[in-house]
Amino acid sequence: MKFATAQDDLGVFVGMVDNKGERILPLNRAEKIRTDSNGFPEKLIECISLGESFIAKAAALEAWASENQREAELYIPIDQVKLLAPIPRPAKNIFCVGKNYAEHAIEMGSKEDIPEHIMVFTKAPTTVIGHEDVILNHAHVTNELDYEGELAVIIGKKGKEIRKEEALDYVFGYTVLNDVTARDLQTRHKQFFIGKSLDGSCPVGPWIVHASALPNPNHLFIQTKVNGELRQNSNTENFIFPVEEIISVLSQGMTLEPGDIIATGTPAGVGKGFRPPRFLQPGDLIEIEVEGIGKLVNKVES
Amino acid sequence: MKFATAQDDLGVFVGMVDNKGERILPLNRAEKIRTDSNGFPEKLIECISLGESFIAKAAALEAWASENQREAELYIPIDQVKLLAPIPRPAKNIFCVGKNYAEHAIEMGSKEDIPEHIMVFTKAPTTVIGHEDVILNHAHVTNELDYEGELAVIIGKKGKEIRKEEALDYVFGYTVLNDVTARDLQTRHKQFFIGKSLDGSCPVGPWIVHASALPNPNHLFIQTKVNGELRQNSNTENFIFPVEEIISVLSQGMTLEPGDIIATGTPAGVGKGFRPPRFLQPGDLIEIEVEGIGKLVNKVES
Repeated sequence: MKFATAQDDLGVFVGMVDNKGERILPLNRAEKIRTDSNGFPEKLIECISLGESFIAKAAALEAWASENQREAELYIPIDQVKLLAPIPRPAKNIFCVGKNYAEHAIEMGSKEDIPEHIMVFTKAPTTVIGHEDVILNHAHVTNELDYEGELAVIIGKKGKEIRKEEALDYVFGYTVLNDVTARDLQTRHKQFFIGKSLDGSCPVGPWIVHASALPNPNHLFIQTKVNGELRQNSNTENFIFPVEEIISVLSQGMTLEPGDIIATGTPAGVGKGFRPPRFLQPGDLIEIEVEGIGKLVNKVES
Repeated sequence: MKFATAQDDLGVFVGMVDNKGERILPLNRAEKIRTDSNGFPEKLIECISLGESFIAKAAALEAWASENQREAELYIPIDQVKLLAPIPRPAKNIFCVGKNYAEHAIEMGSKEDIPEHIMVFTKAPTTVIGHEDVILNHAHVTNELDYEGELAVIIGKKGKEIRKEEALDYVFGYTVLNDVTARDLQTRHKQFFIGKSLDGSCPVGPWIVHASALPNPNHLFIQTKVNGELRQNSNTENFIFPVEEIISVLSQGMTLEPGDIIATGTPAGVGKGFRPPRFLQPGDLIEIEVEGIGKLVNKVES
């Protein structure tokens, strides 16, 4: 099951995307036809907060559409909608794990930079944009804009002091995230927040894949291409801290909530890792693909 | 003008606190009597978003109550309500400036630690608690809980690329904030977020003083007492980066929004600065006072 937030002439809606990623089922519009009531909350973050009952209801609707041959009527071809970020406005900053792949830690410095303990910084909610939205290059504040392809975890239920063994029970699903970074600001301001929080510097999407479809988030290919050239090519099996550990550590003393977004870190191959560095320029097309999820595509513009 | 969020038997409400801090005027309850309509949004963050029209309407209501001798009827003694954090659930993480007083930078390390550029980290919205709420000591995750008394800025209107000269026009008001910190976690995880985001580690209040009453935020006494003993005693004139510069730097490429909270950094005298360090223990009473605003009081409990 894939969940998206999309927009068409009738407005913004939460939808289920079919397996091939070709069509989207607007949940409330379809439910209105099925039961003459809305039935789903307006926002995906609110749907996620409902927990299992949301999944059950969405599955029932999908099955009904299929069994009653209503798919052609109810589904919309995906190219006829604008996909927004699945959670266009998170209720708090995005949690980001720094240096969670050893090769990336090394390319940013040396072996000394491989962390012993999880390092977490955040990106402001104002950074979030969707699939195919424009990444502004912010030339007036940075000369060193860089990409970071990442697997992102969406928390599904409230929890605290979560043990590693139960951590995946707290996951609603997974999506793809580009932790766009102004390297010069990141260095200049020491703590990463400022260099990580330029408006539009957090493309997320194209949709959230429900956790049931990805039982092991720590074994997924991840690739980033810039203008078709492969720059990052790794697998989440290379995580220093797997998803279970990230969730467990974050939740020690801090409550995680439904809709929280955790970016799990980026593998080697960022622009700053090249000699000389290859920072983003206007016109650059960035494609980030994570196995079992899909491809997040954004263009840089001035 | 002082604005607070408070709770009594009738529910949570936005109120104006009188000059002496002795009584609170529940805006919607009073407006209902004056005009038979609610008239104010339910939440202070929404009131702030209305801009000048909110201030004008609140002032008109206050004047009406005074002119018509309705004060005794409409105001509630402050000790008959529970003050919540003025913005109990911010819409994003709290922005925090690190090491913004030279003497504090030195006590945390050496002169080398005095920053050349503004350093910003964040605290999760789940950290926010109010005046007289309990600070949990989180003994299972930290042995080094510390206080940091700070002046906090509340942003009043949306802005980006704000020039220093106009920065104060974007301020709604000021409050007191305790940036409670787990020093061991702060050190272990390098980026400050984890050590700064334990649940309840951000007492804020008791209210927000409107900017019109504090024309110069960079010249205010600030004091922190622990169990009556003076620990921090400084003045915001010692800021390395004054409020105007913080707002200007943060807004370069990043949109600031109404209700955003910016903690401006703490002066020397934190627990970690003592030899040996004096970390917080259950039972400790922390009082932070900022000139022209008031006193934020919280007790540590296990």
